[in-house]
Amino acid sequence: MSQIEVNRRLLSENDQAAQFLRDKFRRSGTLVVNLISSPGSGKTTLLEATVARMAGDYRLAAIEGDIATERDAERLRRQGIPARQIVTGGACHLDARQVKAELEKGDWGDPDILFIENVGNLVCPTSYDLGEDFKVVVLSVTEGDDKPFKYPGIFARAWISVISKIDLLPYVEFDVDAVRAQVRALSSEARLLLTSARTGEGVDEWCALLSERVKEKKRR
Amino acid sequence: MSQIEVNRRLLSENDQAAQFLRDKFRRSGTLVVNLISSPGSGKTTLLEATVARMAGDYRLAAIEGDIATERDAERLRRQGIPARQIVTGGACHLDARQVKAELEKGDWGDPDILFIENVGNLVCPTSYDLGEDFKVVVLSVTEGDDKPFKYPGIFARAWISVISKIDLLPYVEFDVDAVRAQVRALSSEARLLLTSARTGEGVDEWCALLSERVKEKKRR
Repeated sequence: MSQIEVNRRLLSENDQAAQFLRDKFRRSGTLVVNLISSPGSGKTTLLEATVARMAGDYRLAAIEGDIATERDAERLRRQGIPARQIVTGGACHLDARQVKAELEKGDWGDPDILFIENVGNLVCPTSYDLGEDFKVVVLSVTEGDDKPFKYPGIFARAWISVISKIDLLPYVEFDVDAVRAQVRALSSEARLLLTSARTGEGVDEWCALLSERVKEKKRR
Repeated sequence: MSQIEVNRRLLSENDQAAQFLRDKFRRSGTLVVNLISSPGSGKTTLLEATVARMAGDYRLAAIEGDIATERDAERLRRQGIPARQIVTGGACHLDARQVKAELEKGDWGDPDILFIENVGNLVCPTSYDLGEDFKVVVLSVTEGDDKPFKYPGIFARAWISVISKIDLLPYVEFDVDAVRAQVRALSSEARLLLTSARTGEGVDEWCALLSERVKEKKRR
């Protein structure tokens, strides 16, 4: 069996579980957001800021994927939302079967929004459907403005490209317009948001987009 | 065939090519350094600073691994060293067979040091031996001080842990001592270097370590 055939089979098993999850989340009206980025781009910090703004109006929950440690789930539980950690023990991405198994461990009470924070990796998580409504890619300004073209898969597939840590723009070389042009070339649908969890810039706009999408899903 | 069995077989094919490379590099006295980090941690920038300091005394060459674009190889060629790009087209790490195939494309004139800059990914490249003398992990201070325990595989295997972009320390929360403690817990051998390619801090120390290792290899 070639590596391509093996990958195809693993993806097909993943896709069956993803379809199961998608049906389940449609019935419960849960908006599911799959967050993908390099390690340390600020996914968890963005979620902390999101919880602070939205937990009063929506039931939020999170699944955190990491190679090791429970640290990220603990950070979100401290914010008062149910958060579970999937420790992949070496695997470089979350798989829909892991998410399904985690959800089957107990009742989550059908959250309005489920955030799935993937393993820190711009490559492997891109190909794995987790039954989400959309993918979000987070790119911090410290990572450099050449990344969309270097990692085209995720920027082509993400509905929102979040540029994070814009409070650091004065201290790094990062051309926002260059990134915008690359993202547009890869996806005509993608929204680009400039955010700083530290100053709060852009976070309201991010929350408004989520709010709009969850209301839209409930109406269907 | 389970995923574990498949991974084992792929690794074994990789390891045969890695052994071939290791023998070849021993005969030529080439020091081979496998650089691994998240996207945007500053591997290419560190190499640019290294070339500026070392190219007068040593024959240097580089292999650049990326999902897409020739950009990094072009950056190093502009510094005047032979640099070849392996575009993996989706694969999340370099494989020893790709490196072997690249070297067989033509004569490189046996460099003293060959830098292999892996695909930006803290996970997958960790398991693939490329025939290198040692692995280097690069972690920028903007990625957060929890990363060694979150990505223990690479920090346990790297001989040098480079903390990069230390010029940004005043603007981010990053506890160097916490990182040092995690790295020590994962590897008793690892050297921790604090660097800034922008200010030059720590780069001489990095070059001195490389210089020491290349002389040691030539003596054997």
